[in-house]
Amino acid sequence: MKKKLITLAVSAVLLSACNDDTQTVEVIKEVEKEVIKEVAPTPVTSVKNVILMIGDGMGAQQVGLLEEYARRAPNSTYNTRGNQTALSKLADAGHMGLSLNAPHGANGMLVTDSACSATQLATGLAAGSEMIGLDEQGNIVETILEKAKKAGKATGLVSDTRITHATPAAFAAHQPHRSMEPEIAEQLVNTGMVDVLLSGGARVFIPSDIKTDEADQKVLADLGMPASVYKKSKRSDDRNIVLEAKEQYGYALAFDKAQLLASDTDKLLGLFANSGMDDGIAYKACQASNSCTQPSLKEMTVKALDILSKDEDGFFLMIEGGQIDWAGHANDAGWMLNELLKFDEAVAAVHDWVKDRNDTLVVVTADHETGSFGFSYSRKNLPEAQTLSGDGMQGADYKPNFNFGALSHLDKLYNQTGTFFDMMNAANADWDFAATTPEDWMNAVNQYSQYKINIDQAAEIGEREVNDYFVADHKYQSADIVPRFSDFKEFYVYADEDHAAKVGRALAADQNVVWGTGTHTAAPVPVYAVGPEGVTKQFSTMQHHVEISQKMMTAFGFAE
Amino acid sequence: MKKKLITLAVSAVLLSACNDDTQTVEVIKEVEKEVIKEVAPTPVTSVKNVILMIGDGMGAQQVGLLEEYARRAPNSTYNTRGNQTALSKLADAGHMGLSLNAPHGANGMLVTDSACSATQLATGLAAGSEMIGLDEQGNIVETILEKAKKAGKATGLVSDTRITHATPAAFAAHQPHRSMEPEIAEQLVNTGMVDVLLSGGARVFIPSDIKTDEADQKVLADLGMPASVYKKSKRSDDRNIVLEAKEQYGYALAFDKAQLLASDTDKLLGLFANSGMDDGIAYKACQASNSCTQPSLKEMTVKALDILSKDEDGFFLMIEGGQIDWAGHANDAGWMLNELLKFDEAVAAVHDWVKDRNDTLVVVTADHETGSFGFSYSRKNLPEAQTLSGDGMQGADYKPNFNFGALSHLDKLYNQTGTFFDMMNAANADWDFAATTPEDWMNAVNQYSQYKINIDQAAEIGEREVNDYFVADHKYQSADIVPRFSDFKEFYVYADEDHAAKVGRALAADQNVVWGTGTHTAAPVPVYAVGPEGVTKQFSTMQHHVEISQKMMTAFGFAE
Repeated sequence: MKKKLITLAVSAVLLSACNDDTQTVEVIKEVEKEVIKEVAPTPVTSVKNVILMIGDGMGAQQVGLLEEYARRAPNSTYNTRGNQTALSKLADAGHMGLSLNAPHGANGMLVTDSACSATQLATGLAAGSEMIGLDEQGNIVETILEKAKKAGKATGLVSDTRITHATPAAFAAHQPHRSMEPEIAEQLVNTGMVDVLLSGGARVFIPSDIKTDEADQKVLADLGMPASVYKKSKRSDDRNIVLEAKEQYGYALAFDKAQLLASDTDKLLGLFANSGMDDGIAYKACQASNSCTQPSLKEMTVKALDILSKDEDGFFLMIEGGQIDWAGHANDAGWMLNELLKFDEAVAAVHDWVKDRNDTLVVVTADHETGSFGFSYSRKNLPEAQTLSGDGMQGADYKPNFNFGALSHLDKLYNQTGTFFDMMNAANADWDFAATTPEDWMNAVNQYSQYKINIDQAAEIGEREVNDYFVADHKYQSADIVPRFSDFKEFYVYADEDHAAKVGRALAADQNVVWGTGTHTAAPVPVYAVGPEGVTKQFSTMQHHVEISQKMMTAFGFAE
Repeated sequence: MKKKLITLAVSAVLLSACNDDTQTVEVIKEVEKEVIKEVAPTPVTSVKNVILMIGDGMGAQQVGLLEEYARRAPNSTYNTRGNQTALSKLADAGHMGLSLNAPHGANGMLVTDSACSATQLATGLAAGSEMIGLDEQGNIVETILEKAKKAGKATGLVSDTRITHATPAAFAAHQPHRSMEPEIAEQLVNTGMVDVLLSGGARVFIPSDIKTDEADQKVLADLGMPASVYKKSKRSDDRNIVLEAKEQYGYALAFDKAQLLASDTDKLLGLFANSGMDDGIAYKACQASNSCTQPSLKEMTVKALDILSKDEDGFFLMIEGGQIDWAGHANDAGWMLNELLKFDEAVAAVHDWVKDRNDTLVVVTADHETGSFGFSYSRKNLPEAQTLSGDGMQGADYKPNFNFGALSHLDKLYNQTGTFFDMMNAANADWDFAATTPEDWMNAVNQYSQYKINIDQAAEIGEREVNDYFVADHKYQSADIVPRFSDFKEFYVYADEDHAAKVGRALAADQNVVWGTGTHTAAPVPVYAVGPEGVTKQFSTMQHHVEISQKMMTAFGFAE
């Protein structure tokens, strides 16, 4: 059809030209140009907007869990949607690849943390472990977000953890350690680099004495902040960064879902939780009862896109699904699945926004894998023999040697009603695990899990031991007594929090689920790229995260 | 340059036509056609040859180990080769994707074994666990290899395990269970479907009494088979399938590297080991001393390509790097790295053969991941504080909270001098592990590993317990006493063999290595596709193994 149109359009020109040799050649050139423009347009190799989505801890293993759930869970919530995840649609529409994510370079290490990984994604340079926005020598280096802002673009950071947490922080702050969240809070609002900041983490934005100082409480309440959001502070000074953001730096403010949806502004600070935002299981529950007070990751994403896309110069937006990682550290497959679903909702929103455009690059990846997670086959609950009808059975029964894992696990994991941390809170509200009984553990786990444990399993969850790796003044290893791990104990580094992973061990065999670690692994992570083919094809390879950053910057037209 | 040529070529035609309207339109169409042919040729969507390479157990995790070694091991054997793996070159030249690999369909399971996975790759249909070449109801179904043979193409199977092992078997045999290797041996040679068979596994091709029957021994020796290859039989009858292959089915024979390299034939059965072929560590050693008697995976691959590419109708060739999986089951990272290197050599040979062609599709993937392997960060050997020069350090020391894993691990793993099975053999040649002492274990491990263990660690390796999952008549669970596992014990299913994984646990913390299981996981595995863009781009997505099979068949032009 298009070819016919070209023919008609050019024929008029040609008719007037055919008695002159030179002119004829010109005309043929004209025809050529038209045809080439139609059938082989110059590839688009740059874009106006870049959207980077990071599933924290979302390795191939985690994506596999999501895909198996969507495609094959008997009661999959995707059953009414063609059993296809938004991630999978993105893969079909664009390209996939894998990316190595370790602290880069010959002097690097094998495994990354979120701060180093996000810094490398943000800067395209090697960074050290646990650093925010610095290169491996500790120098302050410009991030893709900062370059975008300097180029006149709008910028945004969205996360369902805390806005000062490692992943969002690394795009717009520069600190020697990820733990410096109060300083990160200041930098995020006072540099003028970020137009939209949406997440949890209010506790490092509010005065230290907020628990008791009624005047300070009134200031925040008057700004619209619910008491649940300002309930405690992690600052050591009296600064009110929320107020500074409004008065000194011109941010509009939002502290719950309604305020977010109603906001109409170009510059927005949204803090929706005192610390981390609601987890995926809590989100599932509030959605079901239509009672969510916090915005979802998807709702924050949509609002950010609304605001940023008003800028004619384009935008850079980073969106993190950050609790996939938290569930991985907890070795909690049910929680992790619900986080993946929450993230996939946000991916769907981005895909909807971008699908008819040719000026935007979307990259979805992870910063690293968490937990060395897998479904795995076992010697527990071996299958019964069956008779199959096929002509190749030669009279033999069908009786595999092992338990390869029933699809019903997918529904049971989805239907978990609380995270392993909820179970820990139920076992002992004060986390006084020395005083927690096997009965406490058993009741707590059985309250929330579709898989029921007995008292012996519960007793193992509660086992504790002298810390072989005690270090005074260490954030975690200063604990004298820690949960007792038999195998791979060196990889359970978070002291009391790791009772969660003990719950994971108690449920593992019944879930056909295994975990290798309570920390991260170095496995290459999936990369999805959607946008103009001339920009996205390069992601379909085995790359490193610093290269992902460089490819995004090049697509923006930034010199390296 | 090309555009100019078109202009000149067409101008003559045009000049004679310009006084007639109809003719002018015709001429413009001519110009269009020429231009389109030059600048946007019809994409090639079919191929003459398909080469499928399967890294058994080679998930993203395993590929990551190989990539980190190649790129960053201080003494990487890739240091003289631009630090780039053949797999990575393949990724750059083509496309990458991921593939789900579970027993397919709504009635499937979560985790696959090699038989089911290879069957699904071979047939494009759902298969049951542990089946060979059957659909999920047990029906005999045609494989891509058989379709290729029927279409007049040459066919080949290459593996460094046994030719009757699950992965190669599933492409040309049909049996209700993978354990039926004697029957698989018969089918591989008597159906006329496979032109080239190169691997180990002679033990199921030779008469049951081979150990004692000198006449039978002489027959094999006269055929050129070394005594080390015919040393024992796993048949229960007196058939000599090697002899049948030669006399009834016209196969030339080869039993060592020299015979293979010298062979000049169109139909070749090569059996180079009684059971599995040499492992990657033994291969590294014989290469170093120039004393290899078995052909390498690469040498088998090159010979197979030589033979098969003589067929003008094209060919289908499957090449398996099968011991990556064995190392994964053993939770042996050093062995696994050496297997990955051996596989990458074969990938390099294929890439060399294919890189200037446009008629061949190469797909490299895995059947599943094995071991839930990862490098991981720990609380052992925490880093010392350092002073960094950077302007962002604000006077703070650089002192990460955890041990993120030194790059020197990569060299130390590479330099392991024996597999965990070699260690077990050294600990007790008869595998009488009830009688093996901690000293035996300690000496055995410390003989081969760069990481040294103490007597307490050695004692843990040797711990045994009553089998909680005893099943009479089960291939593995009929053992009364098994190695003692504390955590995830249900996923260590191979009885005495799993002492290897106990070695893995003893070394884990010092290696920064973790394992989740002694079996497989359901993680999606990497897919590499090289060949005409019109064929390969479709692999850059999240697919399932049955779809990989269907895509290969479509590229061959076979109706589904």
